[in-house]
Amino acid sequence: MSQGFDSPEAVEAAFYGAFAATDLGAMAQVWLEGDTAVCVHPGGGLLLGKNAVMRSWSEILTGAAPPRIEYRLINRIEAADLRIHLVEERIQAGGDPASTPSLVLATNVYARGPEGWRLSVHHASLPLMPARAAKGSERRLH
Amino acid sequence: MSQGFDSPEAVEAAFYGAFAATDLGAMAQVWLEGDTAVCVHPGGGLLLGKNAVMRSWSEILTGAAPPRIEYRLINRIEAADLRIHLVEERIQAGGDPASTPSLVLATNVYARGPEGWRLSVHHASLPLMPARAAKGSERRLH
Repeated sequence: MSQGFDSPEAVEAAFYGAFAATDLGAMAQVWLEGDTAVCVHPGGGLLLGKNAVMRSWSEILTGAAPPRIEYRLINRIEAADLRIHLVEERIQAGGDPASTPSLVLATNVYARGPEGWRLSVHHASLPLMPARAAKGSERRLH
Repeated sequence: MSQGFDSPEAVEAAFYGAFAATDLGAMAQVWLEGDTAVCVHPGGGLLLGKNAVMRSWSEILTGAAPPRIEYRLINRIEAADLRIHLVEERIQAGGDPASTPSLVLATNVYARGPEGWRLSVHHASLPLMPARAAKGSERRLH
């Protein structure tokens, strides 16, 4: 089945649903085919192309206890066949209901092709520093 | 002067140029006006709206020694009035030519309005883990 989705929102729901269910097959349906899909996991390197992206999700999801995931849209940018969502994710590791959820910021890009909408970019990062602290280290980079 | 830029590439060059020159005025020209500009610095929290974004750049650039910055386009996604660039940045802290450059991954979104192209989103992160290592911690989040 190579059918895409009816809307960016449907892709997004399917993406976080596949992640929360540790469902690798469902995750593969979400992503854009080809060499241009981009995924950056929190603290991770660049993954370019669907094959590399899906290898990483296989490592993450296979054998993992289903995490609890909440997500919240913070900002969106629209074009005819492109949608950009800035999303705040709250992820609680599977198998440990007492663990503290981690906050993740993600820029998700959805693209519409002939088959419908798919996930094209997922760039996620961990806010390690309070927003207005750690000036010294911020100065070193940006 | 509220003039934008002729192309996404021109915005990108101006953005990294302003950063490398620690030129806050030039940095302000680069960013989209209003409440929807988004900036996430490496390891940083969410900055939403031009005011918040520029306050952060003021903290980063004011009094800083000019860093050395190289950037390389890795992937791009195009729409009529929107452009998404995945960029690899190599940043060497100012004032210390012997320091090791840091590698940063950034998703930059450029938007075209009536005044031309501006920077709408800059989401940057540090690859802290080798791409295929640290499975344990990747499983906790993604």
